[in-house]
Amino acid sequence: VSGPFVWNLRVYWEDTDAGGVVYYANYLKFLERCRSEWLRHLGIDQARLASQDRLQFAVVDVHLRYHKPAVYDDLLAVTARVVESRGASIRFEQQIRRGTADGEVLVTAEVRAASIDSVSLRPRPLPAALAGLLAS
Amino acid sequence: VSGPFVWNLRVYWEDTDAGGVVYYANYLKFLERCRSEWLRHLGIDQARLASQDRLQFAVVDVHLRYHKPAVYDDLLAVTARVVESRGASIRFEQQIRRGTADGEVLVTAEVRAASIDSVSLRPRPLPAALAGLLAS
Amino acid sequence: VSGPFVWNLRVYWEDTDAGGVVYYANYLKFLERCRSEWLRHLGIDQARLASQDRLQFAVVDVHLRYHKPAVYDDLLAVTARVVESRGASIRFEQQIRRGTADGEVLVTAEVRAASIDSVSLRPRPLPAALAGLLAS
Amino acid sequence: VSGPFVWNLRVYWEDTDAGGVVYYANYLKFLERCRSEWLRHLGIDQARLASQDRLQFAVVDVHLRYHKPAVYDDLLAVTARVVESRGASIRFEQQIRRGTADGEVLVTAEVRAASIDSVSLRPRPLPAALAGLLAS
Repeated sequence: VSGPFVWNLRVYWEDTDAGGVVYYANYLKFLERCRSEWLRHLGIDQARLASQDRLQFAVVDVHLRYHKPAVYDDLLAVTARVVESRGASIRFEQQIRRGTADGEVLVTAEVRAASIDSVSLRPRPLPAALAGLLAS
Repeated sequence: VSGPFVWNLRVYWEDTDAGGVVYYANYLKFLERCRSEWLRHLGIDQARLASQDRLQFAVVDVHLRYHKPAVYDDLLAVTARVVESRGASIRFEQQIRRGTADGEVLVTAEVRAASIDSVSLRPRPLPAALAGLLAS
Repeated sequence: VSGPFVWNLRVYWEDTDAGGVVYYANYLKFLERCRSEWLRHLGIDQARLASQDRLQFAVVDVHLRYHKPAVYDDLLAVTARVVESRGASIRFEQQIRRGTADGEVLVTAEVRAASIDSVSLRPRPLPAALAGLLAS
Repeated sequence: VSGPFVWNLRVYWEDTDAGGVVYYANYLKFLERCRSEWLRHLGIDQARLASQDRLQFAVVDVHLRYHKPAVYDDLLAVTARVVESRGASIRFEQQIRRGTADGEVLVTAEVRAASIDSVSLRPRPLPAALAGLLAS
């Protein structure tokens, strides 16, 4: 059984705030970098998906729990796994951990995204081939 | 009966992404600006609170629902009201609407913050005077 | 003789970094907010300019001098004046001061922008009416 | 003769704006990531430098030229080399190129940083050992 997809990243000065920790909105950037790299890993080219297939993803619901702060220079492991995918809706469970994918849990998140038409911005069911890839 | 606190702001180029809408993490900035201005409105000086009383607020839980996107140049109304405050915990309900406080709802959020010690970063119950102000 | 255009703004937590001051890239956001509000003040609607006239502005050169840092909760005055406008090129001188437009100088900047075609992204001379407004 | 230090990074959705390109302030983040990684590469731990030696770096002057825009999903190569270091002042020349370190030049920058005391925020000459490392 394979585990979740893992993406490592570094905390830079740009990510911090005057509290000396990562600014609370910036964890959403980290979570998205992981989802983007996971799509790339699956061979899904988001830029081409938008321009050729007029399909893109829009986050519609996020639940974030901040357990411990990340600080400057931390190396983080961000994970993503799909827990449900049906119609135009995909639900992810994600974690941000210190160091490695079994490190201390800093942030947990549930993210629901919708596949939408790039022009009308309305929900459009995932093509079957894409849905299959995401479910694998 | 008074309504929630309302803070107006403008969407600038910096807030947008290549989808032509406000980037999903940036709504957390808007929500915080409103909470900060609400504290200022109540006469609470966060900078002095941190330096003199070693007290600051840390968001521990956020649930965001993205209903409609804001776009460049939109004037937004962000609202905040406290729905619960006990011990070191404060819960807010917030909305981001287009135009005015009765405009179209773009984002709704539930935000739980903890009052923490600025040095130890551990939860510390709100002083009674402060709790009284927030509950008013 | 009129002075430069002035735009006031507040430093929020989102603008700061772990050094306890405004993050160095964020002053570029403040400078742009002032330029955007100045265009609005002149009656120029950038969104409509882009969609109807296919004209937008792109910054091509920035020289920033950081004299003193802004900190959390500072109220800032950002100024902008056009020092040259010809063809597709506009040069601004801008300042960021603490408090008011005669407050302590924190950042000075020279910014050169080009008016470009929204589709081809190539320079396109400013329409005469627009150039007249900017020079006024 | 060694070339400049090179750091590769990916353009994510968070970096873009509604013009479909990287937002102009965000290149300053990319430039700083490269300088930070270069210090790490030299064995200089900025976090420890600040806490133990009360020494940190503050950018005092930046000149940026925007030649071509980076877009979503671009892989970028950011370079940095020190062109002068004396007293408390270090001058960098940096470039951001598409793809690899000999790719198309998107942004060029001259950055002057000062080594400052973490507490007083006043300039303090670089310790000789550090200056030697940077000049190597």
